[in-house]
Amino acid sequence: MAKFQKHVFICVNERDADDPKGCCASKGGKDVASALKQKLHERGLKRIVRANKALCLDQCAQGVTIVVYPEATWYGHVTVDDVDEIVEQHIVGGKPVERLVLPPEKLTGIDPERAALVRKSPPA
Amino acid sequence: MAKFQKHVFICVNERDADDPKGCCASKGGKDVASALKQKLHERGLKRIVRANKALCLDQCAQGVTIVVYPEATWYGHVTVDDVDEIVEQHIVGGKPVERLVLPPEKLTGIDPERAALVRKSPPA
Repeated sequence: MAKFQKHVFICVNERDADDPKGCCASKGGKDVASALKQKLHERGLKRIVRANKALCLDQCAQGVTIVVYPEATWYGHVTVDDVDEIVEQHIVGGKPVERLVLPPEKLTGIDPERAALVRKSPPA
Repeated sequence: MAKFQKHVFICVNERDADDPKGCCASKGGKDVASALKQKLHERGLKRIVRANKALCLDQCAQGVTIVVYPEATWYGHVTVDDVDEIVEQHIVGGKPVERLVLPPEKLTGIDPERAALVRKSPPA
């Protein structure tokens, strides 16, 4: 049902300066989002791949965080300097940039094998 | 590579009041996001399914807009009253809520059949 062939969410969430988690805004999230959008346009991918600013992706310690759907590839500690490689190698070439990939053990969220998504009956 | 079994993005983007496109914030995007988050927590799905605020999803005329990944199901004109049905029927039950689904012809983006995502050589 999608028209975007890939949908890339970049965290630009802002937390208070004294928040121990830090935030992607303070680590350059907006610059990464702008650079990604610009690069996609240069590659003729406007409206084919969308660079989408997102609020908190819940991986604050790994920021700047990006997630690419539909494949659900997560990247952490992304800088503007990584954008060309992400677009050329992954978005265009189909091969994730392994050095930036966040493995499952570094992601928040409950391991799918330990969590039952489907609960057939509503809560009492 | 994902831990979230589903990742639901809700547009909360704000445009100027005189913008002819309108915006999801003015149509209740933040309330929809809060209701969805609350409902997921009540159903025991915290950190299994993430309700994530997003900036512009590029479907302003259809707001409040939501997209559910990894399946890439798009919903439009969503209100707080629709949240229970989306969670119970789609997120838990696996069946999209057809009356809210945005079909491809209503989505911005270029039809995948008309767009070549992969361009092997960089632009000259």
